[in-house]
Amino acid sequence: MSASVSPMATSAIPHIENPSAFPLSSSLRSYSQKNTSTIGCRRRCCVKASSSDAERKITTKRENKGFKLNFSKEKPETPLLDTINYPVHMKRLSTTELEQLADELRADIVHTVAKTGGHLSSNLGVVELTVALHHVFNAPEDKIIWDVGHQSYPHKILTGRRSRMHSIRQTSGLAGFPKREESIYDAFGAGHSSTSISAGLGMAVARDLLGKRNHVISVIGDGAMTAGQAYEAMNNAGFLDSNLIVILNDNKQVSLPTATLDGPATPVGALSSSLAKLQSSTKLRILREAAKSVTKQIGGATHQVAAKVDEYARGMIGGSGSSLFEELGLYYIGPVDGHNVEDLVEIFQKVKAMPAPGPVLIHIVTEKGKGYAPAESATDKMHGVVKFDPETGKQFKTKSSTLSYTQYFANSLIAEAESDSKIVAIHAAMGGGTGLNYFQKRFPERCFDVGIAEQHAVTFAAGLATEGLKPFCAIYSSFLQRGYDQVVHDVDLQKLPVRFALDRAGLVGADGPTHCGAFDIAYMACLPNMIVMAPSDEAELMHMVATAAAVDDRPSCFRFPRGNGVGAALPPNNKGTPLEIGKGRVLLEGTRVAIIGLGSIVQNCVGAALALKEYDISVTVADARFCKPLDAELIKRLVKEHEILITVEEGSIGGFGSHVIHFLSLNGLLDGNLKIRSMVLPDRYLDHGSPQDQMDEAGLSSRHIAATVCSLLGKPKEALQFH
Amino acid sequence: MSASVSPMATSAIPHIENPSAFPLSSSLRSYSQKNTSTIGCRRRCCVKASSSDAERKITTKRENKGFKLNFSKEKPETPLLDTINYPVHMKRLSTTELEQLADELRADIVHTVAKTGGHLSSNLGVVELTVALHHVFNAPEDKIIWDVGHQSYPHKILTGRRSRMHSIRQTSGLAGFPKREESIYDAFGAGHSSTSISAGLGMAVARDLLGKRNHVISVIGDGAMTAGQAYEAMNNAGFLDSNLIVILNDNKQVSLPTATLDGPATPVGALSSSLAKLQSSTKLRILREAAKSVTKQIGGATHQVAAKVDEYARGMIGGSGSSLFEELGLYYIGPVDGHNVEDLVEIFQKVKAMPAPGPVLIHIVTEKGKGYAPAESATDKMHGVVKFDPETGKQFKTKSSTLSYTQYFANSLIAEAESDSKIVAIHAAMGGGTGLNYFQKRFPERCFDVGIAEQHAVTFAAGLATEGLKPFCAIYSSFLQRGYDQVVHDVDLQKLPVRFALDRAGLVGADGPTHCGAFDIAYMACLPNMIVMAPSDEAELMHMVATAAAVDDRPSCFRFPRGNGVGAALPPNNKGTPLEIGKGRVLLEGTRVAIIGLGSIVQNCVGAALALKEYDISVTVADARFCKPLDAELIKRLVKEHEILITVEEGSIGGFGSHVIHFLSLNGLLDGNLKIRSMVLPDRYLDHGSPQDQMDEAGLSSRHIAATVCSLLGKPKEALQFH
Repeated sequence: MSASVSPMATSAIPHIENPSAFPLSSSLRSYSQKNTSTIGCRRRCCVKASSSDAERKITTKRENKGFKLNFSKEKPETPLLDTINYPVHMKRLSTTELEQLADELRADIVHTVAKTGGHLSSNLGVVELTVALHHVFNAPEDKIIWDVGHQSYPHKILTGRRSRMHSIRQTSGLAGFPKREESIYDAFGAGHSSTSISAGLGMAVARDLLGKRNHVISVIGDGAMTAGQAYEAMNNAGFLDSNLIVILNDNKQVSLPTATLDGPATPVGALSSSLAKLQSSTKLRILREAAKSVTKQIGGATHQVAAKVDEYARGMIGGSGSSLFEELGLYYIGPVDGHNVEDLVEIFQKVKAMPAPGPVLIHIVTEKGKGYAPAESATDKMHGVVKFDPETGKQFKTKSSTLSYTQYFANSLIAEAESDSKIVAIHAAMGGGTGLNYFQKRFPERCFDVGIAEQHAVTFAAGLATEGLKPFCAIYSSFLQRGYDQVVHDVDLQKLPVRFALDRAGLVGADGPTHCGAFDIAYMACLPNMIVMAPSDEAELMHMVATAAAVDDRPSCFRFPRGNGVGAALPPNNKGTPLEIGKGRVLLEGTRVAIIGLGSIVQNCVGAALALKEYDISVTVADARFCKPLDAELIKRLVKEHEILITVEEGSIGGFGSHVIHFLSLNGLLDGNLKIRSMVLPDRYLDHGSPQDQMDEAGLSSRHIAATVCSLLGKPKEALQFH
Repeated sequence: MSASVSPMATSAIPHIENPSAFPLSSSLRSYSQKNTSTIGCRRRCCVKASSSDAERKITTKRENKGFKLNFSKEKPETPLLDTINYPVHMKRLSTTELEQLADELRADIVHTVAKTGGHLSSNLGVVELTVALHHVFNAPEDKIIWDVGHQSYPHKILTGRRSRMHSIRQTSGLAGFPKREESIYDAFGAGHSSTSISAGLGMAVARDLLGKRNHVISVIGDGAMTAGQAYEAMNNAGFLDSNLIVILNDNKQVSLPTATLDGPATPVGALSSSLAKLQSSTKLRILREAAKSVTKQIGGATHQVAAKVDEYARGMIGGSGSSLFEELGLYYIGPVDGHNVEDLVEIFQKVKAMPAPGPVLIHIVTEKGKGYAPAESATDKMHGVVKFDPETGKQFKTKSSTLSYTQYFANSLIAEAESDSKIVAIHAAMGGGTGLNYFQKRFPERCFDVGIAEQHAVTFAAGLATEGLKPFCAIYSSFLQRGYDQVVHDVDLQKLPVRFALDRAGLVGADGPTHCGAFDIAYMACLPNMIVMAPSDEAELMHMVATAAAVDDRPSCFRFPRGNGVGAALPPNNKGTPLEIGKGRVLLEGTRVAIIGLGSIVQNCVGAALALKEYDISVTVADARFCKPLDAELIKRLVKEHEILITVEEGSIGGFGSHVIHFLSLNGLLDGNLKIRSMVLPDRYLDHGSPQDQMDEAGLSSRHIAATVCSLLGKPKEALQFH
């Protein structure tokens, strides 16, 4: 894990005005020895957990450095961090002080996240990186873009938001991701991965066009590098040759919660093996040093000559993992120990001083959960956590009598696959999030983690379907947006029976607007061949899995929410029964008002109906089950037999309500005196918050639905009772 | 352009059971000499054009091969091709016969496309490849997937469809792209680029799971390689290590119609320079041969040893353009002359004989338009053509009094940019198709062709917008589906003022369903911050360009159709005037019926109103201009003052009509006796065909609109007159 420098190929050589301006320091050059022998003791950063009362303090220290932090369980001592409100306060710190600051940050993050929950290990992995970046670069003039963004907690702490960290991911609190509205230091919002190089390149090109001179730094994980957008952006960066610093934060696993049931997920994709090889290649580093010194000796000579010699030297090394980046035209530096503040600062300073380096990629190696033993040893590195005991890392999971929808999905898909060998499953680096880890464990040969690559996931599934397999493609609702063209062009247009399991449909609580599955009903139900379903409870979900498995002549999808089931009676052995396509069901028979819901929001429709009973308003509640094809008979009957029709969905305009009203319009059923109201998610992005707060803000709670009915019938809504 | 073989890195070495099973023939080994010295005369393939009456035949011949084809202008002589209906008829042909077949195919394609129009040069470039593939592999058991698919004409001719080639791209005729419904030989449909490796990998994995033994071949262009999906798929292929043959058809330019005003477009992206370097590296080829022979000498030894020696040998070569593919885990072979049938057949046979090669990439180099002098010398290589004179290549362009909407867009954007230096333009390898070549010529520093990379294009534009520039991102409606997540997550959620110019919105005639812009209104108008516009004519388009330029606090888009303007009076100097946001206009004032259209379909609304006049039905016609925000005042007025409201759009359900009815519902305006009908594109994919045929099939012509009104008013529709 040494820092080394490798120039690019001639054809895309960056404009290094003075190659000698970028010599490696002797400390870096000698690092390959230092790495193996001393990192373990000289500057190991460690947050120890102890269970004895006497030692009930989390201790963070850098051994052999003369400082030692002790802090209580409630509040760690952070004397240096307490003096830092903004990056400007960090500029004069010494290396030792920066290291101390990193340690204090780490302790502060453990302390805070233990109380709030949130992302932990990714943040612990980047404290040194964040400290070094804010020490060397001048945000907000210099733009720092955090890819995915769940690793931005130390950045938030150092940019004026420490006092609000206790509110992170909570209603009206700080967002769990960078957010432009929240701070001028958040150069670009994120939540989905692999956008940072594209955004950074845009900022870099804009800077050049506007004659500015600031730096742009995109920090991207190795997992995010598997997404096509990162490749598209690097290819374009190499071509445009703008000055842009890409920091590849290589933590040897895809960066989303992908722990398998047996431990951390092995990185998927051939790229990861290239990175691994690169990390372990000592010979490579030494030879690269040689190559570099050749370049240095050229000194002020022309770029052409330097480049040629350089390429020759590289030719003798060859076959390295850096090639991919170099082929794409990025100047490669690395690998660098991402927990060594001194090395990071030195490299950043040198890169910053280069007058026109073109796009530079600095490959740093970090560990998720670094320095906090419970995270380091956890199978998922404590990627995303609820509140936990900082001493042990033990999370305070709330007991629930039901499982998550995700788990019910996995269980029923396994049940289907037990009896149908053609069922296969695909996910995009989300084995944990989608529940497919359970499927993977049961059917290792029939489960495919394609990396953060939704586009490929969808077309790959289409290819599987052409040969008669029955692919289930499990992707979060908001992430499938990234495979939309493939859903249209490769699946729906060809009428291939790919089944899409859209988890996290509708509101997502603490994850906030980037993860909100608001648009899937609109963007899927407009497609001619797609069957669009949504279950009202976990038993229905199982039936829809069975339905999707049975439909083998066209594509289908079913969307289900974040959160736990409602306690519905499950089918035997988790094996659902295929539903009749395009048939809904009536849950409550009433006379005056009809409420038809799509998806788990049907529970709120029932709640509204029960409350309205107290007004003697007789309400029919229907579970649409299908947005496409609509249950024409059911809707016609509801319209004919009721004064009022309310449609409810946890999705945007253009979805279920639109389909119902469109149908009514085309069939002349709006020509009479029916009152129809379509309740959808509001036409704005809802902030993160608790699920209940979000539902209230969305205006789709039982109370809202009942109030809508009341206002149509001239009843006061204040006295409504909900149980 | 020799064939050479380069093994992969150790960590991802494919399972080559017997490396010696893949020796290079001496003919291949000596090709690097042959290439430069003899290809010019020995087997040049040439279709000569002559203008003298006596010589009025197109002549195709391979010199020094003993055969010579002569054919008349009407019908070339194709004695060998006439005997081939299916690939099975090609199995016993000699190399010489295969070459003759390729020549006859080329002549046949020139002859056919001259009469029909369509894609020409891409097809001329792959005749040898197609012949070699169908000679060696056994379609349809072996799957051949044509990326993008516009180069599938020779494939169609050789797979039972020659007699229908005269109908290509015409109503009820053959599709211009591979289409699974059309033939069992079309393994995967296409139209959009860069899907073939994903689909092929799916087929390969399915084959393995099902215990079959067929081959899967994905043919992808170098332009398509710039898309992230290709990278995602290669990365996954390298990881899964399934047997899959990827043929990189490198014709040294992006494969869509990207001619600039000054000639062919330079390939964008750093990848292209890697490919170029690879092609020209003689030393590389020689060294690779050496590496290969080392591998060969190992013979039956273990893979490990072979791989190590191999890697060592490669190390001495290093720095080659093949690295990118090898880093991703593909076994690289190439570059190969893609017009040399003999070499292609030999390589395909050897790869086919390898028992378990893993994913193999065969890099072939071809020329678009090869062998047909007018195409070879044309600036756009005659990529997409209308009917033309086969002798001269001169296209019979129909005169039109108006320009294309595309051209009006370009002209007005240039006008805006003249007065606002912050306006920049982005397109994804579609400078010709989007009209931005004109912008590029005027403002070379402010126009960005990012390659076939819609995802990056959108986020790159978002990055530009953060710094205060005013980006116009011009992408076809159906292609923006590929950047949808970026539109949602990077642009709309952050409320960044990126302007999307969606060309080819709605029906697209001969291009067919893959290119139909049906869904954009639904998928854009569901986004909270997006302004969604559509112009009713070319002057309105110019005003909307001005509007988008003026709106700098949120994203906006405007969609406009394929085809020519209607002759509207243009604003002075092509400079539009910003419209009031969310305000439509009334074109015709009537009393009984209101028809409100969005986009150029408003022309049909006017046509319907004029026809209805003869029945004394007084019709108001409104041009909505905006789908979002809706003109609430206008819609309320129309509803209050008319018995009937018809909404019309050239888009799917979930779009404009849905937004109007949703609005009416929420505001209680449906509670009365109004009759409302929402006319959208039908809920199925429309086949390619003439624009008029498509409009009729879509049911959105003036006649259909008027008939809808008649049926609501109890009038016979048969007597309606249209002018």
